[in-house]
Amino acid sequence: MTATIIDGKSRAAALDEKVAAAVAGLKSAHGMVPGLAVVLVGDDPASDIYVSNKVKRTEAAGMRSIEHRLPGDTAEDDLIALVEALNADPEVDGILVQMPLPKHIDSDRVVMTIDPAKDVDGLHPMNAGLLVLGRSALVACTPQGCVDLAKQARGGDLTGLDAVVIGRSILVGKPVSLLLQNENCTVTMAHSRTKDLAGLCSRADIVVAAVGRPGYVKADWLKAGATVIDVGINRIPAPERGEGKTRIVGDVDTEAAKQVAGAITPVPGGVGPMTIGFLLVNTVMAACRRRGLPEPTIA
Amino acid sequence: MTATIIDGKSRAAALDEKVAAAVAGLKSAHGMVPGLAVVLVGDDPASDIYVSNKVKRTEAAGMRSIEHRLPGDTAEDDLIALVEALNADPEVDGILVQMPLPKHIDSDRVVMTIDPAKDVDGLHPMNAGLLVLGRSALVACTPQGCVDLAKQARGGDLTGLDAVVIGRSILVGKPVSLLLQNENCTVTMAHSRTKDLAGLCSRADIVVAAVGRPGYVKADWLKAGATVIDVGINRIPAPERGEGKTRIVGDVDTEAAKQVAGAITPVPGGVGPMTIGFLLVNTVMAACRRRGLPEPTIA
Ligand SMILES: NC(=O)c1ccc[n+]([C@@H]2O[C@H](COP(=O)([O-])OP(=O)(O)OC[C@H]3O[C@@H](n4cnc5c(N)ncnc54)[C@H](OP(=O)(O)O)[C@@H]3O)[C@@H](O)[C@H]2O)c1
Ligand SMILES: NC(=O)c1ccc[n+]([C@@H]2O[C@H](COP(=O)([O-])OP(=O)(O)OC[C@H]3O[C@@H](n4cnc5c(N)ncnc54)[C@H](OP(=O)(O)O)[C@@H]3O)[C@@H](O)[C@H]2O)c1
Repeated sequence: MTATIIDGKSRAAALDEKVAAAVAGLKSAHGMVPGLAVVLVGDDPASDIYVSNKVKRTEAAGMRSIEHRLPGDTAEDDLIALVEALNADPEVDGILVQMPLPKHIDSDRVVMTIDPAKDVDGLHPMNAGLLVLGRSALVACTPQGCVDLAKQARGGDLTGLDAVVIGRSILVGKPVSLLLQNENCTVTMAHSRTKDLAGLCSRADIVVAAVGRPGYVKADWLKAGATVIDVGINRIPAPERGEGKTRIVGDVDTEAAKQVAGAITPVPGGVGPMTIGFLLVNTVMAACRRRGLPEPTIA
Repeated sequence: MTATIIDGKSRAAALDEKVAAAVAGLKSAHGMVPGLAVVLVGDDPASDIYVSNKVKRTEAAGMRSIEHRLPGDTAEDDLIALVEALNADPEVDGILVQMPLPKHIDSDRVVMTIDPAKDVDGLHPMNAGLLVLGRSALVACTPQGCVDLAKQARGGDLTGLDAVVIGRSILVGKPVSLLLQNENCTVTMAHSRTKDLAGLCSRADIVVAAVGRPGYVKADWLKAGATVIDVGINRIPAPERGEGKTRIVGDVDTEAAKQVAGAITPVPGGVGPMTIGFLLVNTVMAACRRRGLPEPTIA
């Protein structure tokens, strides 16, 4: 028996539709249209594509998109001033400053300047803290996507399941661990200093791999039937596609793992598409909370 | 072989001495004396004893103690106004509002009002978030005590050890998990929905019990040589001491566990005394950070 492939692309599309329906509802009931401001500094091609996608999906969901593209040599203080202006702008519900920022800018200072109530990327310490405290927060988008896909694969309820999260970054591993704990999983947080990763994985009902190493998690580490969420996005040479060509792979040895896992996210097409989906969800939530409106149920 | 008893009382006394030395150093180098404001609402006898202890140890360490005792029927807005005044007072470096507050007061609102830079109890979401992000934060005191004692027992370095934290409260379990992860442990966060607690514990080098159930953690769950940190404070009947008498026990079946563990904290005299120790440490740290002075190394 081979694993069910968890289709992140279609789940993300379903999420976009639900967001669009919620936005339409808010418009007709309250005459309100959430607005998302995206700030891009410099012209990194990957960031550019990513920002364009965000803008497209924001508008497709019926929301307002506000784009600020600044030159790569923008002074830190000018960026801070823009963020402060967006904080003060009542028409802006969400603020996303595309990372990474150019090296001369202190990203921490920029993130700390964003009003936590508009921090739809979930990067502000206040939102990380509210997540720890189990209170209403704007939670980082990729981690929300990971947990959503695990729930899809497990019929919604993760209570009592053993989960191992490999990687403890601020962007992925830590918030995934906290979210899975909020879902009543027993969560083990693993990282580069972990002694027996294979043993840990062999006991886990859910394995989330956020390591940044192509094919690192091996099939024979997994428990039969495990749910595997592969967050990795690694570009590797693909000479079979022609000289100098590359392809994207995850952190799991996917083809082999399919023979053991119960369900697995592919790369690409798994966790990847979910990130913007939850960005849109967060923007709707931020808009409702800021305006004192009831939050629609979306995810 | 029976376990080493981890002496929290003498470690806390050593910590107090180090704090006193640091305070003396700050005074002579910068003419600065840290000030801790403690706010007690109502006349709960346990809180009263606890606050008196804090005041005594603060002053014994050479710091200024500012006490505010308010009647039990104090209005929430009046308490908020006091906290705001303490926030604004340049002579106040740390603010501690003794919990629990009377039922008519919204504790969350009070905690949210405390300036995170003066939140020496580490309860503000901003400090919880900074802990997640691995940045300079004021961390809750009991969790710091737990990790300090584990390090004492293990010769300082916890890298790569497997730790199980039983309990996921905001006050104890969650911050202990995050701190142990920052020490490079592989941490499993367990709670009431965990399936196989005995199995988890049997693989752990460090077990932290913060459950609130007398003698809940059994000796035969433990790995030989494990470090056991017992956070529990449970009052149980002690008829052997006379009719109606009680005594305090922890969350671990201590006497039996001593035959298996490598080191164990007693209750009382283990984690308990450490809490005020780290309150004093936090007050010194807050005073230095706020005033832009280098932080002394204490713990
Ligand atoms: N799908 C998406 O939308 C999305 C979003 C963000 C990131 N990603 C991808 O997800 C992956 C992880 O991203 P990230 O930002 O979390 O990366 P990161 O900040 O580099 O963190 C990697 C984590 O993996 C741990 N690690 C490294 N080598 C390990 C090993 N041999 N065994 C166990 N753990 C090990 C590290 O441990 P230490 O802490 O001990 O160093 C670290 O915690 C990357 O491939 C990234 O491209 C995807
Ligand atoms: N030494 C000190 O200075 C100090 C300071 C603070 C607290 N304490 C003591 O530490 C203990 C814990 O305090 P707390 O504030 O963290 O308590 P709490 O808020 O009641 O949390 C108890 C935790 O234990 C978990 N739990 C309950 N029953 C369990 C079971 N059968 N198996 C596994 N987990 C179980 C709960 O899980 P769920 O989340 O699933 O309900 C919860 O997360 C208490 O005895 C308290 O008096 C001592």
